[in-house]
Amino acid sequence: CRKENTREHVRYDIWLKSSTWYEAAILIILMSYSPIISELIESLCCMPGIGRKSAQRIAFHLLERDKEGAQKLSQKLASAVKDIKHCERCRMFTDEDLCLICRSSARNDGTLCVVESPADVMAIEEATGFKGKYFILMGHLSPIDGIGPEDLGLNKLEFQFKEEEITELIIATNSTVEGDATAHYLSGLAAKYQIQCSRIAHGIPLGGELEYVDGGTLSHAFFGRRRME
Amino acid sequence: CRKENTREHVRYDIWLKSSTWYEAAILIILMSYSPIISELIESLCCMPGIGRKSAQRIAFHLLERDKEGAQKLSQKLASAVKDIKHCERCRMFTDEDLCLICRSSARNDGTLCVVESPADVMAIEEATGFKGKYFILMGHLSPIDGIGPEDLGLNKLEFQFKEEEITELIIATNSTVEGDATAHYLSGLAAKYQIQCSRIAHGIPLGGELEYVDGGTLSHAFFGRRRME
Repeated sequence: CRKENTREHVRYDIWLKSSTWYEAAILIILMSYSPIISELIESLCCMPGIGRKSAQRIAFHLLERDKEGAQKLSQKLASAVKDIKHCERCRMFTDEDLCLICRSSARNDGTLCVVESPADVMAIEEATGFKGKYFILMGHLSPIDGIGPEDLGLNKLEFQFKEEEITELIIATNSTVEGDATAHYLSGLAAKYQIQCSRIAHGIPLGGELEYVDGGTLSHAFFGRRRME
Repeated sequence: CRKENTREHVRYDIWLKSSTWYEAAILIILMSYSPIISELIESLCCMPGIGRKSAQRIAFHLLERDKEGAQKLSQKLASAVKDIKHCERCRMFTDEDLCLICRSSARNDGTLCVVESPADVMAIEEATGFKGKYFILMGHLSPIDGIGPEDLGLNKLEFQFKEEEITELIIATNSTVEGDATAHYLSGLAAKYQIQCSRIAHGIPLGGELEYVDGGTLSHAFFGRRRME
């Protein structure tokens, strides 16, 4: 009887704390099930793009059809959280001091490509034959959020400019306001050390039709036109 | 040097084993990163609806911005895999012998709703005020896949029909060929024990326009029309 009483209290608490009645209703329904399941569903929601509905679907799928996969995922998550840190040179995720790209002797030390995130490295590796090295900012300059050059490791980058023989800098930050600002800052830094600096081109995507491309992109492509040879 | 050699072998192996060149290319690119990360990405793919691209996004998000959430998810997954089993009465997921619904004294033992999956229980709990109990098949009859009545726990259900005072059976299997077959089988079982049996209605969804509803549904709704009172 006491247990039921406590549950009623918890329910009341949920109603008070939830931002919408819908959320409260869902939480109360989840409470009718094993707390282990509702906690699992809630934990699954920490992944980007996974809401409560997808989380429930994933939880039931794993418990019903793929306990082995769930077990493995649990272990891999734990070991990644424990062992993964940033590469000392390029700030890529790695489990050693230097990442595989920075350790590789097959890559050109003189060319550095600066990107915002590890996913960008994957995209460039996949699409281009780039054989230089990378520097990953893990974000972009954003004074409004208090993110300055130090937070992006730009002091480390400047140290590399100063101490090593870097001849070319390729800036591949995103084409957003913050990405543009970051690119501008980086080009200033490169100029200071007389390093040749370029930014990847912006324009019409391959297969894109002028009619449907947004105005900003079209204007960029128009003024950034290249002489045909 | 020996390590590089081994890696070359692994790459060659991947090419041989992959079903498409694209998959092979992705796997080889992933190999350039820490094996812990590529293993994590591969493990994340065990979730339904999560492909390699989403898995990569999730892995980077968790490692960069939510290590705590990842840690918690890992623990919750492990404890769910370890502790969750099926309720002895209704086959719902639970960490005890009986699930909370089966243990509840506030629910009517005489009415039983049969559904295919735990997610269906959640949906009915959320949408209706049903206060009876459930029986979860964890699938549907499918002779072609070798799934017979025993696999759905229908012997357990028949035992309940025989030994307990069940007066009404509500069949809420999906509206698929297999769901229909299962419903048919269940109604036969209920008739054997003189239990009143009904199936949830099929017809035009609320807000649905006749013009856009598929023919099967419309025909079902037409022949299943109800007298207005």
